[in-house]
Amino acid sequence: MRRIAALPLIALALIGAKADDGTATAAKLRDAALEKNVAWELVESLTTEVGPRLAGTPKEAQARAWGAAKLKALGFQNVRIETYDMPTWVRGEEEAWVLGEHSQPLAVTALGRSGATPAAGIEAEIVHFANVEALEAAPAGSLTGKIAFVTHAMARTQDGSSYGYFGVVRRSAPSIAATKGAVATLIRSMGTDMHRNPHTGGTNWAAGQTPIPAGALSLPDSDQLERLLKRGKPVRLKLVMTPRFIGNQQSGNVVGEIVGREAPDEVVIIGGHLDSWDLGTGAIDDGAGIAITTAAAKVIMDGKQRPRRTIRVVMWGAEEVGLLGAAAYAKANSGDKIVAAAESDFGAGKVWKFGYRVAEGAKPLMATIAKVLAPLGISHDTANTNRGGPDVQPLATLGVPTLAPEQDGSDYFDLHHTPDDTLDKIDPKALDQNVATYVAMTWLVANSDVQLGPVAAGPAR
Amino acid sequence: MRRIAALPLIALALIGAKADDGTATAAKLRDAALEKNVAWELVESLTTEVGPRLAGTPKEAQARAWGAAKLKALGFQNVRIETYDMPTWVRGEEEAWVLGEHSQPLAVTALGRSGATPAAGIEAEIVHFANVEALEAAPAGSLTGKIAFVTHAMARTQDGSSYGYFGVVRRSAPSIAATKGAVATLIRSMGTDMHRNPHTGGTNWAAGQTPIPAGALSLPDSDQLERLLKRGKPVRLKLVMTPRFIGNQQSGNVVGEIVGREAPDEVVIIGGHLDSWDLGTGAIDDGAGIAITTAAAKVIMDGKQRPRRTIRVVMWGAEEVGLLGAAAYAKANSGDKIVAAAESDFGAGKVWKFGYRVAEGAKPLMATIAKVLAPLGISHDTANTNRGGPDVQPLATLGVPTLAPEQDGSDYFDLHHTPDDTLDKIDPKALDQNVATYVAMTWLVANSDVQLGPVAAGPAR
Repeated sequence: MRRIAALPLIALALIGAKADDGTATAAKLRDAALEKNVAWELVESLTTEVGPRLAGTPKEAQARAWGAAKLKALGFQNVRIETYDMPTWVRGEEEAWVLGEHSQPLAVTALGRSGATPAAGIEAEIVHFANVEALEAAPAGSLTGKIAFVTHAMARTQDGSSYGYFGVVRRSAPSIAATKGAVATLIRSMGTDMHRNPHTGGTNWAAGQTPIPAGALSLPDSDQLERLLKRGKPVRLKLVMTPRFIGNQQSGNVVGEIVGREAPDEVVIIGGHLDSWDLGTGAIDDGAGIAITTAAAKVIMDGKQRPRRTIRVVMWGAEEVGLLGAAAYAKANSGDKIVAAAESDFGAGKVWKFGYRVAEGAKPLMATIAKVLAPLGISHDTANTNRGGPDVQPLATLGVPTLAPEQDGSDYFDLHHTPDDTLDKIDPKALDQNVATYVAMTWLVANSDVQLGPVAAGPAR
Repeated sequence: MRRIAALPLIALALIGAKADDGTATAAKLRDAALEKNVAWELVESLTTEVGPRLAGTPKEAQARAWGAAKLKALGFQNVRIETYDMPTWVRGEEEAWVLGEHSQPLAVTALGRSGATPAAGIEAEIVHFANVEALEAAPAGSLTGKIAFVTHAMARTQDGSSYGYFGVVRRSAPSIAATKGAVATLIRSMGTDMHRNPHTGGTNWAAGQTPIPAGALSLPDSDQLERLLKRGKPVRLKLVMTPRFIGNQQSGNVVGEIVGREAPDEVVIIGGHLDSWDLGTGAIDDGAGIAITTAAAKVIMDGKQRPRRTIRVVMWGAEEVGLLGAAAYAKANSGDKIVAAAESDFGAGKVWKFGYRVAEGAKPLMATIAKVLAPLGISHDTANTNRGGPDVQPLATLGVPTLAPEQDGSDYFDLHHTPDDTLDKIDPKALDQNVATYVAMTWLVANSDVQLGPVAAGPAR
């Protein structure tokens, strides 16, 4: 009885596996990625041999040459560099010093697109604002001749949402302070570590506005300045900050493909960004993303069967300075049949949740992917609202579906945009888990004939 | 029966407490210290209002004025500053840059007493040595025109012994490299953290030797340089390092006392050092020691009874640059009847072991102290060989007994001599445990008539 009853169950299981189209292969590829992949080798090479690679500079050009050479060496097809020009900003001297009886240096760095002080610096009194709302409430002209000092209460979070919420301080405070007469703005770094390495990052100016010097203090220095202000006497600073714009320079995106076996014109995009801030060597931001996605594609390339659709690895340029590579990419490639796009750009922490934004009809495929990812410790974010990494935003705005393995960013903002963003911060095991995630997800989408769109076009709300 | 039998036990306990001379008071003072003391207030004030205080500079003079004012305000007697002159070294510009195809900056800082490059810097090839033995084995003249790069395998330890063992790299490698023709020396920082804040610290030259530029790379930068060298091609660096000696300057030790009620000429010394390296604000090195020992004496001062003997708080100057304050102190005060001396100079981690070096006859008193410290989580180091902190070495060499609460230094070398040595690194609870330790130990010795000496004079082997 038992043996007879068991037979149909086994048969059913076998049929189930076949009907499940690609799941078994995806699991096999996933496990192969955990076993061996080239991600560490790639991120070690990029961060060591190229190092810092600020957008628009010769170092970013060196990174493009590196990217194209690696893609070719790994066997990718149609390797190319798609160039564009961009206004380029470079760092100068930077120094802050408390004047008077409590004289001491403070660790400061210029924000991207900061204006400059004269070479000899400026001396001015500090006015503290605990948040952007307080700064906005300051009367017009009330900051004339002063340095605005703006702090915030950013916290450590797994999903990085605190950065999005409090990040307005970096993005907007300098511009607001300038409209009220400030001669400079210093912010508390957008970070979560207590090391004296300030966090840089871009700040924005209104059209036609003249940038004022805008810098970030490390968290210990920001606390120190707050303690000095609490003494109740005016605190004056000397600030030297001499970054400059060096006009339009060339930047570019690097692309390589695994051409699909049945639907070569249908493209699944995965990638990271090649530029980094100049302070560190861009290991977690975003050497890791470059390495994870390239290594994942390579694992698929080395599998038994090419996928139905084309997998395209994109190494975007000039992300840090305003998604310039992403904008150029979307503009130049809007005619392509892009099935879906994913970017890894949140460090190298383990993926803990799988999110996406797809059409209703693609939900079963998403559930299949989630099932293959589950053994990696990844849960399923069914909200269907995740627009993915920064460089796929221009594509998402055009209506391209997005895939979004969500990384654990609990320590991401300890390192983000600081000199501490170096190779040693990457855990090779977590890196491998990321590669395995991208392998399974990318294979399943690329080997499927399910349409992931349409999704609504338009910018994120 | 029960009640009758109990009476003699209680009586015995009371007699025991009386015979135990001071134990009960010590325990009460210990617990009072845990409840409330001024250590945090002191270290907050010193690190915020004075900040970095390099020996021989106006900032160290400001720290002396701070120390004397605090001791007076707290009610100490005989507050005084004992001055001496010292050769003074100050930091200049410092920058290291990999030249050629892998061009990138490296985080570097000059070691104390480093020589200088020309203002425009030098360019030279790197030669790597994995330890001082390998450097010593290099043939005479083999480093002519080269930069020696010396690394080591220092590890994280609770007692800090790895620093003592591997520290020869910082203390001696530059001098050895100079004898073989090196134009500069770079070492892997003597530290255990992976942040891009190099660790400074003094290096030594042979008598008459001309100092060459000597710097430390942060650990991530040291690893990066090793990775670049592993590529197999020569690596050339540009190095700018312009520290200078500014001649003899005034330094000094700050002293305050609680004069003993019965034996005022018998002195128990506790203290820390007032100077710090210039990169951080000297919170764990050694604002904490200043705060712990001053706060401990203040708790005793505020107790019901003054101790038999005098308690003297000493804030030594110029420790970092070669125990100059300690040497001047021992010379100027060698006529005093110094019962014992203790320095807190290993951060603000919890005390985990109580050590000392005393005469045989004082061992019972040491056991009594250990018993009062045990509830604080402190074990008893009975080796009787602990010569205490750096600034009591000249006293120990004269034959002064030493007391040594041993702090947990597991993370001390993450911060030691770096810009990261700031207030936020101190755990207020651990600080309080230190104060309680010093309170109990100091009270018991100062209120005793037990002689702690004689111990052997002479330097540590």
